[in-house]
Amino acid sequence: MVSKNQIKLITSLQQKKYRIANKLFFAEGVKGIQELLDSDFELDHLYTTQNDFDEVSKDKKTIISENDLKKITALATPNSCLAVFKMPTEKPVLETGLIVALDSIRDPGNLGTILRLCDWFGIQQVLCSKETVDVYNPKVVQATMGSIARVNINYIDLNAFLATTKLPIFGTFMDGSNIYKSELPKQGIIIMGNEANGISTELEKLVTCRLTIPRFGNLQKTESLNVATATAIVLSEFRRG
Amino acid sequence: MVSKNQIKLITSLQQKKYRIANKLFFAEGVKGIQELLDSDFELDHLYTTQNDFDEVSKDKKTIISENDLKKITALATPNSCLAVFKMPTEKPVLETGLIVALDSIRDPGNLGTILRLCDWFGIQQVLCSKETVDVYNPKVVQATMGSIARVNINYIDLNAFLATTKLPIFGTFMDGSNIYKSELPKQGIIIMGNEANGISTELEKLVTCRLTIPRFGNLQKTESLNVATATAIVLSEFRRG
Repeated sequence: MVSKNQIKLITSLQQKKYRIANKLFFAEGVKGIQELLDSDFELDHLYTTQNDFDEVSKDKKTIISENDLKKITALATPNSCLAVFKMPTEKPVLETGLIVALDSIRDPGNLGTILRLCDWFGIQQVLCSKETVDVYNPKVVQATMGSIARVNINYIDLNAFLATTKLPIFGTFMDGSNIYKSELPKQGIIIMGNEANGISTELEKLVTCRLTIPRFGNLQKTESLNVATATAIVLSEFRRG
Repeated sequence: MVSKNQIKLITSLQQKKYRIANKLFFAEGVKGIQELLDSDFELDHLYTTQNDFDEVSKDKKTIISENDLKKITALATPNSCLAVFKMPTEKPVLETGLIVALDSIRDPGNLGTILRLCDWFGIQQVLCSKETVDVYNPKVVQATMGSIARVNINYIDLNAFLATTKLPIFGTFMDGSNIYKSELPKQGIIIMGNEANGISTELEKLVTCRLTIPRFGNLQKTESLNVATATAIVLSEFRRG
């Protein structure tokens, strides 16, 4: 059974201002929730339609009906469970190794996919511009498939940070050097740009190494790659050695 | 002005059976429509809220209100135009070069993104299993951003085709050879598997070269890559030379 107040609280967490006010966010689905339970994230309360998650103590778990789940889910087709977690405080930025910097990524699915890729490729630090979609947006949490628990994510003034870093700064552009033929270091910052506008003019000025993913198809077309698939190609190139 | 019958027809085209019955599909947005107009696709009728697309003859174009557009769109936030096109008959399969074979890709966004990647990497032929989502689904058309006009797509019995082809057949698995260290030819078939289940057991038996995209992160996690990002990495590796 979910109370009216709980329904009100949980559905409010679909909005950033209520997530910040309550310092809470939620995840849905067994896999994603399990990954968060196995991490440093602190569970506030778990709502499940199954008699599962034995490791969660009784006072932190409520078995609910599918009908109740429909009242709190953010999904069109709800999963079997939803868990509210405490939003952790941001950890300090790890200015080492490969870092991915996101310049105004707006689509939650793209941010989630990029975080999953960072986790796959062992990127420990992701820096987001303040305009980037909130990582605790339920659609982002869903798309990360648990990677949110394994990548350090900070929302910062990217411009100020990049202006003072000593690490090389990479970006992909139409006129950069062929990424397949470039020497790519083990340390550096890779900027990925906004879905519609790419890397902003301000940040572009701070890029120290311009790269291009060559196009092999119909060359007169100027179509670009989706930012998540471009990130996949760039990270694969940096890591393949 | 859009008539009731037009509204009924266009909204019915969101369903595969009506697309097949009418041999029609639709695209939305200036860019995607322009790409289709510039291709072999034959326009049935264009509906636009702007006085644009001068090259389209008057009898094939209706200027409509935003309110009318809302009645025919498949998008939550409609664009400025929607165009109905004739569904072309499938061309013969091009059994040459690199071919991408899709084994039950179910998500329209994934199929659209994969077709866009194929276009970028100059893959001319995509083979879809009959269980793969329909390429004329409005969400697929939207996600391809026009690439649908430049890639030859056939829905076939993949199992029968792969059992008789002379081309090498590639697939990615947990236990394959490191893709970064493998010799990758200019001709061959690359199978990408279903979102939840990967490559089916039947097709797996036909794979002649098992590949792996190495994981660089937290190695005890078994998380997989999303199929569209995995396709990006695989196609990039095949093309980089």
